Amino acid sequence: MSLSTNFQPLYKQVYDRLIVRIADGYWKPAAALPSEFALAAELGVSQGTVRKALNQLVAESILIRRQGKGTYVSEHTQESSMFRFFRYREAGGEDLIPITEIVDVERRIATDREAKKLNLDKQLDLVQVTRIRSINGKPAIFERVLQPLAIFPGIDKERELPNSLYTLYQEKYNISIVEVRDELQAVSLPADIAAHLNLAADSPALMTERSSINIDGRVAEWSQAYCSTDNFVYSVSLK
Amino acid sequence: MSLSTNFQPLYKQVYDRLIVRIADGYWKPAAALPSEFALAAELGVSQGTVRKALNQLVAESILIRRQGKGTYVSEHTQESSMFRFFRYREAGGEDLIPITEIVDVERRIATDREAKKLNLDKQLDLVQVTRIRSINGKPAIFERVLQPLAIFPGIDKERELPNSLYTLYQEKYNISIVEVRDELQAVSLPADIAAHLNLAADSPALMTERSSINIDGRVAEWSQAYCSTDNFVYSVSLK
Repeated sequence: MSLSTNFQPLYKQVYDRLIVRIADGYWKPAAALPSEFALAAELGVSQGTVRKALNQLVAESILIRRQGKGTYVSEHTQESSMFRFFRYREAGGEDLIPITEIVDVERRIATDREAKKLNLDKQLDLVQVTRIRSINGKPAIFERVLQPLAIFPGIDKERELPNSLYTLYQEKYNISIVEVRDELQAVSLPADIAAHLNLAADSPALMTERSSINIDGRVAEWSQAYCSTDNFVYSVSLK
Repeated sequence: MSLSTNFQPLYKQVYDRLIVRIADGYWKPAAALPSEFALAAELGVSQGTVRKALNQLVAESILIRRQGKGTYVSEHTQESSMFRFFRYREAGGEDLIPITEIVDVERRIATDREAKKLNLDKQLDLVQVTRIRSINGKPAIFERVLQPLAIFPGIDKERELPNSLYTLYQEKYNISIVEVRDELQAVSLPADIAAHLNLAADSPALMTERSSINIDGRVAEWSQAYCSTDNFVYSVSLK
């Protein structure tokens, strides 16, 4: 298919092509992209069109530019991934890195609701990782992370799960989480979860349901987290 | 002062100059900016430097570009402002426009905590607007909005407050809210607020504290909102 046979703006078509190359792992995390000149020649478009597509990818943090060096595929290092998507803070406080303890890893069938959240057919196999995240030595967050085995084959066999799962997803499963969609509610804490967080049952807690979106636009992971807000807040800036 | 006497990158100095012009109302909302060529000549920098500063302002939604027409100062229309900063939804639902009912407007002195949140000296005068926002006919949010009189002189004399206060701020007080910073917690609903929302006292509720940031980087407004999450969620996308 030539680049000009559909009705999207040309730069958007170039953008889509480049996204697919990154999603497919043709360009790996941290890889340098060819020059604008070389890309323009290869794709048969102007250098300005290539630049516009690259600008968009940089704005979305999928690519990064290094002054005088070139354009690279973003890496999700432990830290950058943490700071970008980990939104719990002590009230008015600084960015905090949580310490993570794995409670349990099990393989099971998705419930109807989970399958819907993950855009999966019913009854697909998934891995549920249960973990507790502590901030400044205090257990703060009880979390269940669901990983479809179709997307993460054999992930329940990983010997060690890192603090930031997204790094693992990118390095071993070619899944690059570029967006998360959070829905927050206040709930009364179920007794079993309250015990893990050293809180009384029925304490008010923040419940976050998160869909993690792969670079190809699909939901790759879905999670549910309960957070005591006696000491912590969910902090976000909207621009 | 010449543009080149400090150590910031040149485009950042141009960016700062342009921000001040917008913040000062030299360019009003919806105004067209001069061409890149004209700005470059006026400021004694290259057109590429001007473009870089403009790109940044467009990325921050302070300016907008219209294909083939030019670059304009963003307007906060009722709708765009709503969709950008109003984050409550029915779970899994579409964007919703709330209906707002003003309960009370009073002039009072800031508490120490409020003064700190607003970066004000102690005991400064402010206006407190208490309002209830309904979604699909259900009272959903009880909100107290604090407006320092130093920033919004005489705002308690406004005869009618619009659904989106930010539009009023921009049109009458030259305050352009370009960012909000939210901190969310789960709380037990105080009895007086629960009554306004048709809920039982001590129901778990989401409490959002919001700092609204003017284009000059200062906090212009601070608010506290309680939301029942029986029917609603706070929804946000992070990229």
